Amino acid sequence: MSYQPVLIAGEWRAAKAGGSFRAENPATGETLPAEFPISTWADCADVLNAATEAAAILRTAPSEQIAKFLMRFAERIEARKAELVETAHAETALPKSPRLADVELPRTTGQLRQAAAAALEGSWALPAIDTKLNIRSMLAPLGPVLVFGPNNFPFAYNGIAGGDFAAAIAAGNPVIAKAHPCHPNTTRLLAEEALAAVRETNLPPATVQMIYHVAPEDGLKLVADARLGAVGFTGSRAAGLKLKAAADAAGKPAYLEMSSLNPVVILPGALAERGAKIVEEFTGSCLMASGQFCTSPGLTILFAGDEAEQFIAGVKAKMESTLPATLLSSGVARNLAASVKILQAAGAELVTGGSPLAGNRFANTFLRVRGETFLAAPEKLQTEAFGNATLVVLVRDAAEAATVLTHLEGNLTGGIYSDTRGADDALYAQLAPLLRSRVGRFLNDKMPTGVAVTAAMNHGGPFPATGHPGFTAVGIPASLRRFAMLQCFDNVRPHRLPAALQNQNPNGKMWRLIDGNWSQGDVAA
Amino acid sequence: MSYQPVLIAGEWRAAKAGGSFRAENPATGETLPAEFPISTWADCADVLNAATEAAAILRTAPSEQIAKFLMRFAERIEARKAELVETAHAETALPKSPRLADVELPRTTGQLRQAAAAALEGSWALPAIDTKLNIRSMLAPLGPVLVFGPNNFPFAYNGIAGGDFAAAIAAGNPVIAKAHPCHPNTTRLLAEEALAAVRETNLPPATVQMIYHVAPEDGLKLVADARLGAVGFTGSRAAGLKLKAAADAAGKPAYLEMSSLNPVVILPGALAERGAKIVEEFTGSCLMASGQFCTSPGLTILFAGDEAEQFIAGVKAKMESTLPATLLSSGVARNLAASVKILQAAGAELVTGGSPLAGNRFANTFLRVRGETFLAAPEKLQTEAFGNATLVVLVRDAAEAATVLTHLEGNLTGGIYSDTRGADDALYAQLAPLLRSRVGRFLNDKMPTGVAVTAAMNHGGPFPATGHPGFTAVGIPASLRRFAMLQCFDNVRPHRLPAALQNQNPNGKMWRLIDGNWSQGDVAA
Repeated sequence: MSYQPVLIAGEWRAAKAGGSFRAENPATGETLPAEFPISTWADCADVLNAATEAAAILRTAPSEQIAKFLMRFAERIEARKAELVETAHAETALPKSPRLADVELPRTTGQLRQAAAAALEGSWALPAIDTKLNIRSMLAPLGPVLVFGPNNFPFAYNGIAGGDFAAAIAAGNPVIAKAHPCHPNTTRLLAEEALAAVRETNLPPATVQMIYHVAPEDGLKLVADARLGAVGFTGSRAAGLKLKAAADAAGKPAYLEMSSLNPVVILPGALAERGAKIVEEFTGSCLMASGQFCTSPGLTILFAGDEAEQFIAGVKAKMESTLPATLLSSGVARNLAASVKILQAAGAELVTGGSPLAGNRFANTFLRVRGETFLAAPEKLQTEAFGNATLVVLVRDAAEAATVLTHLEGNLTGGIYSDTRGADDALYAQLAPLLRSRVGRFLNDKMPTGVAVTAAMNHGGPFPATGHPGFTAVGIPASLRRFAMLQCFDNVRPHRLPAALQNQNPNGKMWRLIDGNWSQGDVAA
Repeated sequence: MSYQPVLIAGEWRAAKAGGSFRAENPATGETLPAEFPISTWADCADVLNAATEAAAILRTAPSEQIAKFLMRFAERIEARKAELVETAHAETALPKSPRLADVELPRTTGQLRQAAAAALEGSWALPAIDTKLNIRSMLAPLGPVLVFGPNNFPFAYNGIAGGDFAAAIAAGNPVIAKAHPCHPNTTRLLAEEALAAVRETNLPPATVQMIYHVAPEDGLKLVADARLGAVGFTGSRAAGLKLKAAADAAGKPAYLEMSSLNPVVILPGALAERGAKIVEEFTGSCLMASGQFCTSPGLTILFAGDEAEQFIAGVKAKMESTLPATLLSSGVARNLAASVKILQAAGAELVTGGSPLAGNRFANTFLRVRGETFLAAPEKLQTEAFGNATLVVLVRDAAEAATVLTHLEGNLTGGIYSDTRGADDALYAQLAPLLRSRVGRFLNDKMPTGVAVTAAMNHGGPFPATGHPGFTAVGIPASLRRFAMLQCFDNVRPHRLPAALQNQNPNGKMWRLIDGNWSQGDVAA
């Protein structure tokens, strides 16, 4: 049997495989021809050893070289755009345009370029200098980073090209990418371009490595391996919690994005003022990418009454008149059906949808539940139904709304819609603090599905949305700080200091905290 | 039986106790009179509930109020200095002067004042503003912080007055302090002053709470409780790892300082150039506070040869002519004896010392081992012997030194002594990167025992020295960032934003990252 080769230590070579798999075309149901290996521990050990060697060199590689790699990689992705878009479309059924070609691919190359700029500038490392005591510190590379990409962004979160990849590389670490088994061909193409860019820029060959799949026990062994620096993971809560436990026990930092319902509270005044507009925004956000975004609104809180019923009727009509799109895989379709069943069993009633359709599709699904019922089974009714399904909780009054909010788990986002004339202000003041502390990004009058790549973004949040509430997976430079250790230099001789901590500012642009003030200048000699 | 009361919800009240304990005077061996309760879960539940209420108020308390509390607390500690010093001396046998009165107490109040200044200024929260997208983010309070203080700093790391306390409060969180059972009287006095300062500044009564002791299973339940925001811990590796596992499983950030050998490499040229001076520095550092510092040098690497033997002879003579001091407790003395036995059993030979002495003392102890022997049992030979014992590893050559370094666990500090004329430069270049990546603070030509409270300090390091390599327990403002969550505000109406994220800089001093540049100015409207 001939499998696709894996990328280890700078070479495409035959995997030491313990099995194989193929991807499927979710739109047609056909199995795609290429056969991909499930690597054994022998491959894992090889990537870890090669990454360890690369890490030692990368630690002191000039930031210009790392930035150049990221920029060349972005250019190479653009040059191969047509093939990448075709391949990702075949493996995910995501629309070629605008989604893959005009949104996700430019976002991916944009992230790589922002990461390059951050690496070049250097301020991400928060260099701090105490001139009187001659103590200096900064964030520094941590070692090989293992990145698990999710199923829902074949480019922008891909283990070999996405946000975690860009952040880990820009922070000076080699990456070991674990492909998502739903889009191995896409991942192979990206890995080919990554390796070519590594060669063009003379980085250590094992700066980027990629394996397609491993047995679950080898995945747990990988994240706990002494040679590893950190783990980046985006995926399901079940898988994330297992990896977290293994990484935690070994003392390895693991940055995991695991689940989110992205609660939205729509206050009565907002519904009265602009209910029809919010119906449009809400339904659009829920059905965007068939609801397969980490920030899709999965739980909405409404105050029971006529306007809430009008809103529900409006969403129902809109959902029923919108053609459901193909889901990312048969697995997503199966899990969605199972999750909707769990919600129903816990007391949620179907407003519309609830059934699988031909071609890995699922009817646009809208469920409702009373606040009282929600509070009787808050865990079950927070089951994430990943895909085009969403639940509305109808609360009786402010007190019940507050109680519902205090039962919410940690989420990536949460938001409140309120009216513009002050009718909702008292309710807002009561509910906002409860929601604020349970989410990473808090919105007003806006649906959560857009995640801008900006320094002020937080794509993170309290457990179990992620593994640590202090970090973000999106937003440069903050996302780089996940893949770093704090290094202090005490009385170290000047010429032995890293460039960022020497008296002279290495590029005249790096922001450094010198004796308590941020400065782009030199340290006075 | 009448026990000392515990501090819960702003009141000194009788504990719901499941047992009791007394402290001992380690110098005399006598049990001190006061009887302290071991709280049951009923007390734990009460402190958690009270802390939750306090946290909701503290989240929006003006930074001036929090700063004022920290400053008043510092003043009150100073006003009660004589009693605090007497009490801590009786419970720890640490010298009243200079140690307790002139070093540790001023350090403690200095930390509180630095934390107050950081809270007032606000830059610690790394506010970031994207004016174009109107997305803004900052670090914000996380919720109640449970602080476990260690045995070795009754003031500066005390759960109710030390570095973790100051950082957690300055970041806007209430603190639940768990006293160290070796100095409950000292902790009670500090808690009395903390509560008085809370009352003076009108903070929520449960801003500071203190219990003395709990059963181990209740400790694990506490760190995993949903009401808790985070955990700060300084203590033994055994206890730290258990707490870490419980906190990790519940997704609670736990910042743990657990162990460190603080390896020092003394290169041959340095020994040849200034061996006698280094003997003085080294022995002084090892015996400072009877070696009961987290940063005491516990493992030294020398290149075998005549100069190394002279160094060893010099240290031996110095150790034998220095009177061993009383250790912190009978437990410390017992553990030290046991650790030295483990080192000996693994192949280390005694140069001097090795035996317990009367009065909770231990002979100043110096052990040696060949690199080869070390490499045969690197784990056992990295057993931390907390107290006045230290091990030297004699390596054959640079290659063996490098191998020893690659077998080192994560440490708080590590350092290299080299000569000043370049004879050691090649060795330094080979060994420094290996040590650098394994320690939080890296030193040149300096012993690790001084830990300055400066923004550039790192008192942290890779696992198992701590639980996460990106954070420091000492150094303001960075230490505050441990007890915070990242909060992003997306499209939030201007008047609803926290002061730190509004267009106007709230105090004209806060550094904010506005569109990629650090600024103390306002956002242009």
